[in-house]
Amino acid sequence: MSKIANTPNPPYYAVIFSSEQTDDLEGYAETAARMEELAAQQPGFLGFESARDGLGIAVSYWSDLQSIKKWKAQAEHQIAQETGKSRWYSNYKTRIAVVEQDYSKK
Amino acid sequence: MSKIANTPNPPYYAVIFSSEQTDDLEGYAETAARMEELAAQQPGFLGFESARDGLGIAVSYWSDLQSIKKWKAQAEHQIAQETGKSRWYSNYKTRIAVVEQDYSKK
Repeated sequence: MSKIANTPNPPYYAVIFSSEQTDDLEGYAETAARMEELAAQQPGFLGFESARDGLGIAVSYWSDLQSIKKWKAQAEHQIAQETGKSRWYSNYKTRIAVVEQDYSKK
Repeated sequence: MSKIANTPNPPYYAVIFSSEQTDDLEGYAETAARMEELAAQQPGFLGFESARDGLGIAVSYWSDLQSIKKWKAQAEHQIAQETGKSRWYSNYKTRIAVVEQDYSKK
């Protein structure tokens, strides 16, 4: 199970990836796990959270916009994005946001 | 199942609520459904997405920060927040973010 990411004090960036899947999930789980591992190795990566029950929501956290752009353009990630688009996802939306405030359970 | 929210062009706000639950979920499902219904009636509300498999991620979208503050202070929502804190959630984190860009499956 994914846990709440231990992000630093704001500001930082969040990439919210919301997706609906097709019935053809061949290779999906392996690629998702590999992308999570690979993202964590990128410069500027701060954390990752995900959940799915029908709709999937994955949020990755980053120190700056340049790091997000580099990750989007990373070669192995590009292939995963293309496969996601053509095979695994019937619909998705990516939102890039600046986290300005956060608060936790005391 | 929650669907991808049909939000307008950026900029707009996202409130990302990530949570881990306790074993005491009495009243939780009813309150969550009621809060989703009530949020949708608030001024400035743009959409809502949620998913849970262990970790829960709920994202609500808003036109502006003032609308988020009013919703946080709404009376029935205040009670739900207090019950969540004392009963349903072992841990949570709320992040308030400005969505600057978004893109969808073409």
